[in-house]
Amino acid sequence: MSDIVTAAVLIIGNEILSGRVRDENVPYLAEALNEAGVRLREVRVVADVEAEIVAAVNELRRRYTYVFTTGGIGPTHDDITADSIAAAFGLPIDYHPDAVALLRGRFRQTGAEVNDARLRMARVPEGGTLIENPISAAPGFRLDNVFVLAGVPVVMRAMFASLRHQLDGGEPVRSLAVAAHLSEGAMAQGLGALQLRYPEVDIGSYPFYRGGRYGTSIVCRGTDGRVLEQVGAELRQLMTSLGGDPIEEAEATDPA
Amino acid sequence: MSDIVTAAVLIIGNEILSGRVRDENVPYLAEALNEAGVRLREVRVVADVEAEIVAAVNELRRRYTYVFTTGGIGPTHDDITADSIAAAFGLPIDYHPDAVALLRGRFRQTGAEVNDARLRMARVPEGGTLIENPISAAPGFRLDNVFVLAGVPVVMRAMFASLRHQLDGGEPVRSLAVAAHLSEGAMAQGLGALQLRYPEVDIGSYPFYRGGRYGTSIVCRGTDGRVLEQVGAELRQLMTSLGGDPIEEAEATDPA
Repeated sequence: MSDIVTAAVLIIGNEILSGRVRDENVPYLAEALNEAGVRLREVRVVADVEAEIVAAVNELRRRYTYVFTTGGIGPTHDDITADSIAAAFGLPIDYHPDAVALLRGRFRQTGAEVNDARLRMARVPEGGTLIENPISAAPGFRLDNVFVLAGVPVVMRAMFASLRHQLDGGEPVRSLAVAAHLSEGAMAQGLGALQLRYPEVDIGSYPFYRGGRYGTSIVCRGTDGRVLEQVGAELRQLMTSLGGDPIEEAEATDPA
Repeated sequence: MSDIVTAAVLIIGNEILSGRVRDENVPYLAEALNEAGVRLREVRVVADVEAEIVAAVNELRRRYTYVFTTGGIGPTHDDITADSIAAAFGLPIDYHPDAVALLRGRFRQTGAEVNDARLRMARVPEGGTLIENPISAAPGFRLDNVFVLAGVPVVMRAMFASLRHQLDGGEPVRSLAVAAHLSEGAMAQGLGALQLRYPEVDIGSYPFYRGGRYGTSIVCRGTDGRVLEQVGAELRQLMTSLGGDPIEEAEATDPA
């Protein structure tokens, strides 16, 4: 299975660790990556501390096809991502001429004063290529397999759209979900047997409490739609045999 | 500062990595830990794969005072957290008599059949002590500095309340937030100078777009309330001098 393309997301975020802000980028990236045929395998949130960022980047970029960082690329003193990425790769960092031109163009447009702090946003490690930011101009960058993105969700999404075509994805994962008002404990044995028969499908079990009733959602994920349909049929049979009434679940939150 | 008590959260969660479910436990734990005087320093989300869980647990439990895992302790085949924790510590795992008694009591109450799958939830690595689950009986457990909790938010919260008194916290971090309709770029220089003058306070800058206007929230965090007040006063002064109109922010989402 050498054609499985993987990714990790590294959130540089004191504000997430303090509980002040709730991350919105992981749910988005999880779905968008899956649609691109890239499987999100790990997420880390680390503090705005260079040594932490360097260690995480170096571990993740060796383990996964792609790494996406979010946060820490603004103009203030706590924006240390670009320098940390340069340190992780052991590369110098300097003003990228195209980034400087983009920022100066933006400042002219908005009337913002050109100052040292704002120009820091144009600093990119040697060899980095820019990722366009159609929202607020200050670009992200790619260095090798690491994509450095903004933390503000609307900007992060726009940057992801800009880099999407660079991703070399494998087969996207399809999913199928069936729920029933049965407990996990009642289905566990049958589910375990089903998983053994279909090792290529990932079968997950998620208990819920909805509308005053307990139940369990079973989510099956795999790349082969026909195999998935077969697993779904056996799953519904299992639920019916246990006295449950299988409910096909909407896949709104699950990428097809 | 050897009295800083730290923590990491390890989410065992294919459903988070697939984008199907949005994590709700990190925001809760971030605040609850801070109130207990424990600083959340890192979060990881890994797949339901034993080798991944083992590697993460062993790295995190050496680096931080406490580790909290969420997810993977139910009765189904994909619930492999207890076995993975045992493997991480190199310890055998067996049925914990008190956990078996709790589960049998619960099954009698609810009329659920006692089966092997359900009894798996009573398996605890050698030396583990139970964490009470007042919601659905199946307990979590503590092994050394690792707390193993459920993934379902309501159960996770109840378990956290059960273990809260075991945490040996330091001083809680207080915070103070001031916003202004100023860009980060305008404030960056002054903020950097402020951070240099108060290295013991963590000053974070977060741009926003609200009610049709751009602005920046500055969040100051530290353990000394008087120092924090001083930083707040200088911050408001800086904002005023730049033509901004400082707004005290509600701290509803930020633990005091």
